[in-house]
Amino acid sequence: MSIVVVGTVAFDSIETPQGSAERVLGGSAAYFAVAASFFAPVKIVGVVGQDFPEDYLKILSGRGIDLQGLQRKKGETFYWRGRYHEDLNVRDTVELRLNVLSDFVPRLPDSYREAEYLFLGNIDPNMQMEVLNQLSHSRLIACDTMDHWIQGSPKELRRVLERVEMLVINDSEARLLSGEHNIVRAARAILRMGPKVLLIKRGEYGLLQFADHSCFAIPAYPLEEVFDPTGAGDSFAGGLFGHLARSRDQSQKGLRRAIVYGSVVASFCVEDFGLRRLAQLRLEEIEERFQRFVELTDFHT
Amino acid sequence: MSIVVVGTVAFDSIETPQGSAERVLGGSAAYFAVAASFFAPVKIVGVVGQDFPEDYLKILSGRGIDLQGLQRKKGETFYWRGRYHEDLNVRDTVELRLNVLSDFVPRLPDSYREAEYLFLGNIDPNMQMEVLNQLSHSRLIACDTMDHWIQGSPKELRRVLERVEMLVINDSEARLLSGEHNIVRAARAILRMGPKVLLIKRGEYGLLQFADHSCFAIPAYPLEEVFDPTGAGDSFAGGLFGHLARSRDQSQKGLRRAIVYGSVVASFCVEDFGLRRLAQLRLEEIEERFQRFVELTDFHT
Repeated sequence: MSIVVVGTVAFDSIETPQGSAERVLGGSAAYFAVAASFFAPVKIVGVVGQDFPEDYLKILSGRGIDLQGLQRKKGETFYWRGRYHEDLNVRDTVELRLNVLSDFVPRLPDSYREAEYLFLGNIDPNMQMEVLNQLSHSRLIACDTMDHWIQGSPKELRRVLERVEMLVINDSEARLLSGEHNIVRAARAILRMGPKVLLIKRGEYGLLQFADHSCFAIPAYPLEEVFDPTGAGDSFAGGLFGHLARSRDQSQKGLRRAIVYGSVVASFCVEDFGLRRLAQLRLEEIEERFQRFVELTDFHT
Repeated sequence: MSIVVVGTVAFDSIETPQGSAERVLGGSAAYFAVAASFFAPVKIVGVVGQDFPEDYLKILSGRGIDLQGLQRKKGETFYWRGRYHEDLNVRDTVELRLNVLSDFVPRLPDSYREAEYLFLGNIDPNMQMEVLNQLSHSRLIACDTMDHWIQGSPKELRRVLERVEMLVINDSEARLLSGEHNIVRAARAILRMGPKVLLIKRGEYGLLQFADHSCFAIPAYPLEEVFDPTGAGDSFAGGLFGHLARSRDQSQKGLRRAIVYGSVVASFCVEDFGLRRLAQLRLEEIEERFQRFVELTDFHT
């Protein structure tokens, strides 16, 4: 079961209280794809510039990720510089250059069109819609978004939301999108916009899943060292989608286990800068931490 | 198995974005005692002034709470006025008058001295120590504290911590007490101060339990209406202690279930101002929500 992800592939420069990293491989599609690749084949749709190094492509292709849909264009790759506060839930964007992303038109290669799982990473809702229109059929479509699109392209975003089964956002985005401060009421309002399943990420505090008749809540895996939260949300979504594609079980029970797998993959992501930790990760480590997560949260058995 | 709680009994005036309440029954011992009373007999040690109304005493005695250790003194009852922000995790103390609490010397009546469970609510560590010195034996002693004592009476607090099995505090207090920002490292540092078990409350985000070789994490029960977070932490501790006294099971498994019961009782507490909701609560409602909490968090069975 292959997964298509559309999103950014980027250079990230990151400062956290633990240190810094310059122009490392980043972007929503890169994090998602590496995270999902532990479980299922992944195909990327995105764009990079001429400055994008072969080494970074190898990190992706080395994980078996299909790069046929990754366009290489004249110009520079999308660049983001961010700085985290001591409270790692808070970050400032210091610099952002869209570069080749500014006139990007996503194109699904023919070999992508039958993919059963599609994840629309956090990009312009018009680009997300462009991809939706190219897909011939699917088993599960999910998307992410952010404050910039919620405020700047509300109509376009609403049209995308009408066509996706699952929305993956963080709690402040859920409040902004719904206009409700209380997170349960925010969730109810968002479910009326189209998605059948809403996943609300809360960083180090865990995650909430809302659907019509159910709610699921997990804490985050407690870590002694958090180096860099960048990409945790996309790694979560990648692990979740990867496990869903592996298990083919979209029942409430299957979804819950996939959510925990996503959370576990995200917990590795933040242990080093950029994609360093995920690039070294082994499936056995994921399975082992999944078991620890079971023990961490179990009062049921 | 009876439980003794030492703490404040107070008049609280509360403002939240949902409304306000004037001079309602409050204080750590009152919340704890009402919460614990659903599961086991509770005895209060504390002090009130001559202005304390009979109706408020009846709320406590009506729940079967033993008030023999509640001193009635000349002067006015401890008074607190607080205002919550739209983010209910943030509150300002607008007014605080210690009144009769300022020269309070806690005294355990003879009938209290054999109590197996003792909870030292958030009061001056010197008062907490006074109570410890009066207890003849015990099965479990826990305490709470706050920034005021962590910063103002660090030595006295440390001596109390050396003599308690369990510490129940919130995450900012854990950071302040340990000097560590990361919550796992903060927990490790605090466990070296004496307590065998550390419970870190995170408000709407849930709770972490740390012990020597184990960690347990739960989310909070998601609520559509939160009227007043006052007393949620003490209600949690009361529910936890009550269930421990009822089950007599202090194994890791027993402790985990007690933590969930505490969290469930706290989730009711915040549904109305002051003690209104808890005063009306029935054990069946607690058991029902416990089951919902099982469903909310289960991916284990």
